[in-house]
Amino acid sequence: MTTSTGACSVYGQVAPGFEAVRDELARIAADEPGFSAQFGAYAGGRLVVDLWCGPDIGPDSIQGVFSATKGAAGICTALLVERGALDLDAPVSRYWPEFAQGGKQAVTVRTALSHQAGLAGVEPQLTLDQLIDHDYLAGRLAAQIPHWHPGSAHGYHAVTIGTIVDELVRRIDGRTIARFFHEDIAEPRGIDFFIATPDAEEHRVRDVLPARPAAPSPGAEPMVNPVDSLAGMAFNAAAQDPFDPLPANVHAVRAAGTASIGGTGSARGLARLYASCIDEIDGRARLLCEQTVASVSQLQTAGPDLVLGIPTRFAVVFQKPDDRLRYGSHQAFGHDGAGGVIGAADPWHGLAYGYVPRRMVAPAGADPRGMRLAGTLRRCLAASPA
Amino acid sequence: MTTSTGACSVYGQVAPGFEAVRDELARIAADEPGFSAQFGAYAGGRLVVDLWCGPDIGPDSIQGVFSATKGAAGICTALLVERGALDLDAPVSRYWPEFAQGGKQAVTVRTALSHQAGLAGVEPQLTLDQLIDHDYLAGRLAAQIPHWHPGSAHGYHAVTIGTIVDELVRRIDGRTIARFFHEDIAEPRGIDFFIATPDAEEHRVRDVLPARPAAPSPGAEPMVNPVDSLAGMAFNAAAQDPFDPLPANVHAVRAAGTASIGGTGSARGLARLYASCIDEIDGRARLLCEQTVASVSQLQTAGPDLVLGIPTRFAVVFQKPDDRLRYGSHQAFGHDGAGGVIGAADPWHGLAYGYVPRRMVAPAGADPRGMRLAGTLRRCLAASPA
Amino acid sequence: MTTSTGACSVYGQVAPGFEAVRDELARIAADEPGFSAQFGAYAGGRLVVDLWCGPDIGPDSIQGVFSATKGAAGICTALLVERGALDLDAPVSRYWPEFAQGGKQAVTVRTALSHQAGLAGVEPQLTLDQLIDHDYLAGRLAAQIPHWHPGSAHGYHAVTIGTIVDELVRRIDGRTIARFFHEDIAEPRGIDFFIATPDAEEHRVRDVLPARPAAPSPGAEPMVNPVDSLAGMAFNAAAQDPFDPLPANVHAVRAAGTASIGGTGSARGLARLYASCIDEIDGRARLLCEQTVASVSQLQTAGPDLVLGIPTRFAVVFQKPDDRLRYGSHQAFGHDGAGGVIGAADPWHGLAYGYVPRRMVAPAGADPRGMRLAGTLRRCLAASPA
Repeated sequence: MTTSTGACSVYGQVAPGFEAVRDELARIAADEPGFSAQFGAYAGGRLVVDLWCGPDIGPDSIQGVFSATKGAAGICTALLVERGALDLDAPVSRYWPEFAQGGKQAVTVRTALSHQAGLAGVEPQLTLDQLIDHDYLAGRLAAQIPHWHPGSAHGYHAVTIGTIVDELVRRIDGRTIARFFHEDIAEPRGIDFFIATPDAEEHRVRDVLPARPAAPSPGAEPMVNPVDSLAGMAFNAAAQDPFDPLPANVHAVRAAGTASIGGTGSARGLARLYASCIDEIDGRARLLCEQTVASVSQLQTAGPDLVLGIPTRFAVVFQKPDDRLRYGSHQAFGHDGAGGVIGAADPWHGLAYGYVPRRMVAPAGADPRGMRLAGTLRRCLAASPA
Repeated sequence: MTTSTGACSVYGQVAPGFEAVRDELARIAADEPGFSAQFGAYAGGRLVVDLWCGPDIGPDSIQGVFSATKGAAGICTALLVERGALDLDAPVSRYWPEFAQGGKQAVTVRTALSHQAGLAGVEPQLTLDQLIDHDYLAGRLAAQIPHWHPGSAHGYHAVTIGTIVDELVRRIDGRTIARFFHEDIAEPRGIDFFIATPDAEEHRVRDVLPARPAAPSPGAEPMVNPVDSLAGMAFNAAAQDPFDPLPANVHAVRAAGTASIGGTGSARGLARLYASCIDEIDGRARLLCEQTVASVSQLQTAGPDLVLGIPTRFAVVFQKPDDRLRYGSHQAFGHDGAGGVIGAADPWHGLAYGYVPRRMVAPAGADPRGMRLAGTLRRCLAASPA
Repeated sequence: MTTSTGACSVYGQVAPGFEAVRDELARIAADEPGFSAQFGAYAGGRLVVDLWCGPDIGPDSIQGVFSATKGAAGICTALLVERGALDLDAPVSRYWPEFAQGGKQAVTVRTALSHQAGLAGVEPQLTLDQLIDHDYLAGRLAAQIPHWHPGSAHGYHAVTIGTIVDELVRRIDGRTIARFFHEDIAEPRGIDFFIATPDAEEHRVRDVLPARPAAPSPGAEPMVNPVDSLAGMAFNAAAQDPFDPLPANVHAVRAAGTASIGGTGSARGLARLYASCIDEIDGRARLLCEQTVASVSQLQTAGPDLVLGIPTRFAVVFQKPDDRLRYGSHQAFGHDGAGGVIGAADPWHGLAYGYVPRRMVAPAGADPRGMRLAGTLRRCLAASPA
């Protein structure tokens, strides 16, 4: 790999042919004083982009990635499928008998893991302490009558999908999802990502910075979720301000192993995590065979999201690209986080990448700058001699 | 309850803290000369609003409520579920064997009662006499091949859903839905609502007044359902003018017990009916336990309505709130009628209410003024000391 | 039938009362120099319109109809249903065991034949030679993991739905769909339409003319399907230019019997084909009974199309009318082709018609002029004494 330390404040390396990604990041950084982010990418199992820029951030900085944690949870799910331990078409209650309560006996793993189970939240709503108490929340979900008929629609299970995946892992494997992920995926493959962040890694954690207050814009409405709406429930608006404190900045959240929102990592870690799913890396066989990748990245549901009120598309746990989430080809799968983080793999292009901005974006979710970088990455690959 | 006879032409009572509802109704009445309506509400099982205004209307006036009758039919359905007599996931044909014709053997009660059965109407279409002839229409529906594949979509079964519910009640209980409703729900609980209006109550019936002709508005199109469209079929446009005569003003319709459109009642009656579902009233236990309420108010389908051409959301028989039907929280359930009538319960807020305007609104359906009153009601409750 | 040779360049015949159709075609022809098309229609099983206009076209000219071929494939499917040989609710794998691969063992015929199977294309993509090689493509589809979960959504299987239908016909009947269609439908009924065009008929084939380049229009975007999108895959954009050469003009395509896009015919042939489904013609009993017509024309799915990116509606193989495809009543069923061809039947009105323009339209699909002619046809029928 050619070492090409970036101009401006961009540091790190890009492989020959991928210089445009560094240039794009430099342009982004020039546009916003104090901009700070990491971007990493693998092509064909080879690290081709490994960049960072901005104050107080290095290649080994990690930070809370909010819902990008769900991508790691999705990969744990995929690994159980790969091992033949989890059948997507089995009822959840085969693995988790208590889940049969509330008319949910026939709800399949596939339905539950694609935001279609109607369990987007619970009422009365959750304090932050309850939210990170796995057993408490799993018990509430098991008992609940779904808010919509499972399979009839989807709505973002912002917090609860992590609990469902975690409970499935615990019932099938015996370990928590955080430990399963660390021991079977991250640690042996040198992936800098944690579902539960060990205290020994806490010195590398950088606080997520809150989004800058938006300039007053006539006609723009603040995103307000009425407490009595499905969105209010999914984000626990009645019980707490979902962004104060930012969960990513709360030590107890990072330590708890909350698979929906509690993970930390670097862009390099996210890129390597997703690349491991689709390619051999450094001599280690790919984590998932092609058939498993096709199965878990298969689109499960598309259309208006009952919680978010906008169109969304989900695979098994993963988000699928759409007009808003321009992650790549129709084969791509990944997950963003409220702060703007993106992690994704794109088998069509043989690419995987991670993007970690330090400051949150508004509206919350996949930072358009991360998607611009990914677009540049695809153009570099298309232009490069095969 | 404080007796506070309204200013302007608003009469009746509001409990302390709910004065703003009376003021809102007075404002509405002041805006439209001759405006005439009833509004009633329960909070926590207590009558907190009981108002009426306008010429020739009193607290005991009743009138045809069009499709708000479906709300009463939904409550009958719920009571059968509560009693364990009706399984929403059973095929309709378990109770009504003839329904298995036309490829419908596997269509569940849940599908049929959420406007998803593809039986939005029949062709050749129905005269008014056929429409209120229960056995005739039930036979037509049993024989029919659905117009869309059951479960693949929903479309408002404007007339036929009442026939399906009624037939289920008859097969399970032995009584007609009108008698079942009267004997098991309305009469013992003092609820002023009728699916079939007895002649002895006819002296209280006020005619529904037709909507005022809309002022010519550039760009506005009259609602026309081509006779060869699904909507034309659902509203029997080829066989009769669905609004001439207004079915609510036809004695034979009111007497027939047609559960889709034939009921009569007062706002007080509708409020008490819905409140009875979620709260103890005057020492009588609630009609439905929390689990039954959660089951029947569960969202079954959301999205574009194949008949109405706009997005709609349905629970089991009931409408669910959306951007158009702002009934309350995501837990609310209710039904409007073409004339503008609304009846709804909202477990999240512990509220139930009824609104009965005398004059029809255009476009047909939930009168925005009724939804404004309900919004004021929720604000009063939120502001009141618990 | 009154022989009324058209003014302008319109030739042929219309029955009394249908003169307005000829006038409409004359207006259309007058608007576009060199316009060339055929339009034919049956009412109640009687040929009432049989017109053609423009250079180098006659009543017996035939040309490639692109996806309008799918309509003929739909009618073959319907005939198997009529004969009790095909159960729409059976899994495809009952007839075609290899189809069970890739998690498709439970995918029903109904799902597969309404563009819901998630098999909109294959990757790596197809050369034109592979596309018309039935056994090759059938094998690829049998092995494939669907791109979306079957039944969760629909997306236009532009090429592959023909392969699925053809394989079902082969497994059930033993003959290819092209031979089945010719021997059991077209030949005995004098229907001028071919799924595989015999060399003996090639002298009647007229080349399809490419669409005129659109005038530059500010804001208009060319339809470009990124090669890595579902649409790119469905139209094989990565392997070939889907419109160069025009498949309809390639002898090998016309000869291959490719049921998705390879058929040829005349407007008169299309009209007679669809009329045969719903009416007795020239003393021959209708091909399909009312129940079969209701079953195969039943709407199976409606909403955003994952491939086309616009709303579409499908019955079993057939398209259903919507705001874009104004084919007639809600009972109508038919199919268009990229060149603008339309074939449709409308049981509500007792009509069937075919429209074959010589020059392709842009955007591709049902030519608005064909739909205007069909609208005029319905008005003529409504105005005529029954």
